[in-house]
Amino acid sequence: MPKPMKTISQAKSHGGVQGVYSHLSTSCSCDMTFAVFVPLQARETPCPVVWYLSGLTCTHQNVMDKGEYRRMAAELGLIVVCPDTSPRGADIPDDKDNWQFGCGAGFYLDATQVPYAKNYRMYSYVVEELPALIAANFPADMSRQAITGHSMGGHGALTIALKNPQRFRSCSAFAPIVQPSTAGWSKPAFEKYLGMDEASWRSYDATSLIEDGHRFQEVLVDQGTSDGFLNDGLRPWLLEAACTKAGIPLKLRMQDGYDHSYFFISTFMDDHLRWHAERLSSHG
Amino acid sequence: MPKPMKTISQAKSHGGVQGVYSHLSTSCSCDMTFAVFVPLQARETPCPVVWYLSGLTCTHQNVMDKGEYRRMAAELGLIVVCPDTSPRGADIPDDKDNWQFGCGAGFYLDATQVPYAKNYRMYSYVVEELPALIAANFPADMSRQAITGHSMGGHGALTIALKNPQRFRSCSAFAPIVQPSTAGWSKPAFEKYLGMDEASWRSYDATSLIEDGHRFQEVLVDQGTSDGFLNDGLRPWLLEAACTKAGIPLKLRMQDGYDHSYFFISTFMDDHLRWHAERLSSHG
Repeated sequence: MPKPMKTISQAKSHGGVQGVYSHLSTSCSCDMTFAVFVPLQARETPCPVVWYLSGLTCTHQNVMDKGEYRRMAAELGLIVVCPDTSPRGADIPDDKDNWQFGCGAGFYLDATQVPYAKNYRMYSYVVEELPALIAANFPADMSRQAITGHSMGGHGALTIALKNPQRFRSCSAFAPIVQPSTAGWSKPAFEKYLGMDEASWRSYDATSLIEDGHRFQEVLVDQGTSDGFLNDGLRPWLLEAACTKAGIPLKLRMQDGYDHSYFFISTFMDDHLRWHAERLSSHG
Repeated sequence: MPKPMKTISQAKSHGGVQGVYSHLSTSCSCDMTFAVFVPLQARETPCPVVWYLSGLTCTHQNVMDKGEYRRMAAELGLIVVCPDTSPRGADIPDDKDNWQFGCGAGFYLDATQVPYAKNYRMYSYVVEELPALIAANFPADMSRQAITGHSMGGHGALTIALKNPQRFRSCSAFAPIVQPSTAGWSKPAFEKYLGMDEASWRSYDATSLIEDGHRFQEVLVDQGTSDGFLNDGLRPWLLEAACTKAGIPLKLRMQDGYDHSYFFISTFMDDHLRWHAERLSSHG
């Protein structure tokens, strides 16, 4: 029986349907909202799924409004799922003045520390709970999945792909945080979510995962050269070095003059969706 | 000398630049903000200008975020200008609980009634002041202009094109208010802006303008069949009847299942930009 889910809104777009849904998440112990675009092709046959994980401060809505993925997803016959970035609600422990921690900053990990461990379980949510909900409620071919994301969501896409290489046919990222365990804007969050034992951080850090033997067949990364977070928070060269050492083919494209915004994301969204569609096109 | 203008933000997008600017408007007696996308082609040669007028409650930002015009504008070499929908600011008379009047609801007219006549002069602003500012500050070929808009902005596009047929090579609209003088959501605003003499409303009403002899060479209109405002506020058949009687070629496309949102606008944005580009392509 399909798991219970509430429809918040649905609108026809590019021949398909852009919907927003909510459900009571057992992983996060709160109501969670997410967006799903279902292309017209899904009326005939289940369609592959592209996961888009958003960055700091975002909800499901930012990329739905500004990511410009629907035209190409409609053309290629892709379902696009956009989860929220953290648990939400009055009962969720948060630090309202800190945009790099708490609500809007779940970092796609399962927190182990009090009081965050009860709700901040975005890894389990995105990897287990939400896929089951999608499989039960949408015309999705779950044997064909791809994952991408922006900034903190690029971190999520990379780490989740590295830890679940059999699940995903392809992985890409827009301006990802490639080494959150050492970046100034994410290290304090890791301390609070995971505690001070840095060994426990390695399974939520793309470069550490690669050093520890995790592999993925190939990765596409776009990074703007005018991104204000390039040198402090993002540092794609760390991923490049790790991939080179591990023999993971990384297509790192430094995009001249682009910043960290959705103007950057939407410019290269078509390329990423095509990249994924090429790898999702054969049936499993 | 270029008129003074302040740059609020600029970001590279699809090879061009999406900017947001502000200036002190003499028409509206307040600071006005607007968005301009300039494609890469403008580095080589002045580009034609497409005006996009937004609907009720919008600012310059809604279509910039959700309209998905940049990819195609970049491909076709079009500058896209997105003005605000009304004067703004603490000193501007407004009715904060009414989304159909005041700030966000300027209806692209020049108010004649106290206290609105001082600031609510969006017709003069869009037709005279802002074009002069664009001409002075951007690599725009002002001999090649097109105009479009959504809902109240579709009303703006139609009325401005009908009153300035030599200015614009082409006109289109998304779900326009075609007869605001009789629609429940706009008639009260006309009364407040223009007074009770309905004869004065005719120059801000597309169907009245056509009845009174104004003409435009051809018009493209898209309208969603699931638009909640279709039967009360929009009523495209009134425009169709007026155009048929006047011999104005109207391409009215009823789009099955689409609503009034940006999901509808963004779906058909490419078609509209192509429509305009075809008519803007020859040099004047």
